[in-house]
Amino acid sequence: MTSDLNTQHRAALQSFRESIDNIDAALVFMLAERFKITQAVGRYKSEHKLPPADPGREQEQIDRLKALAREANLDPEFSAKFLQFVISEVIRHHERIREGQED
Amino acid sequence: MTSDLNTQHRAALQSFRESIDNIDAALVFMLAERFKITQAVGRYKSEHKLPPADPGREQEQIDRLKALAREANLDPEFSAKFLQFVISEVIRHHERIREGQED
Repeated sequence: MTSDLNTQHRAALQSFRESIDNIDAALVFMLAERFKITQAVGRYKSEHKLPPADPGREQEQIDRLKALAREANLDPEFSAKFLQFVISEVIRHHERIREGQED
Repeated sequence: MTSDLNTQHRAALQSFRESIDNIDAALVFMLAERFKITQAVGRYKSEHKLPPADPGREQEQIDRLKALAREANLDPEFSAKFLQFVISEVIRHHERIREGQED
């Protein structure tokens, strides 16, 4: 491998990484916005004594995200796992809100 | 709880859910784009016989995302967990590419 090739590889990888870093920043800010909303939902449900979970809702979300994933050529099972990963964090937030209000 | 209040609650929750669904669609399409890039990286590294991992890179990404998360009022530890969740999927993709090329 010549030094020129190394420079070329470094430049190519650097360009890929910049795109990944841009997307990751977008993902973090989108997730922050999503949690703002789910925290507002948690507060709303708690204030109005509404049940914390809606059994049919999660399955609807999973089915919808899988369909969107297929459109985007993303593994549908990954999109389902991703939603469950995010929802488990939402549940942790809601539990924290509930604990805070019981103090 | 009166029927009017029920209607009001349903409308409020529906509005929250629409925002969550919009954000989830954006997240799925951003993730699809991210995997397009990491798959291109995997192919590039494989074609040019470059090492699959760069030890310093992941820690840099984690540190950067944690700083962005703080800015966005998102739990920095969650952003690190999120990145690791996505990276573990990337590794699964890369392994699949490598297996495909060994056939």
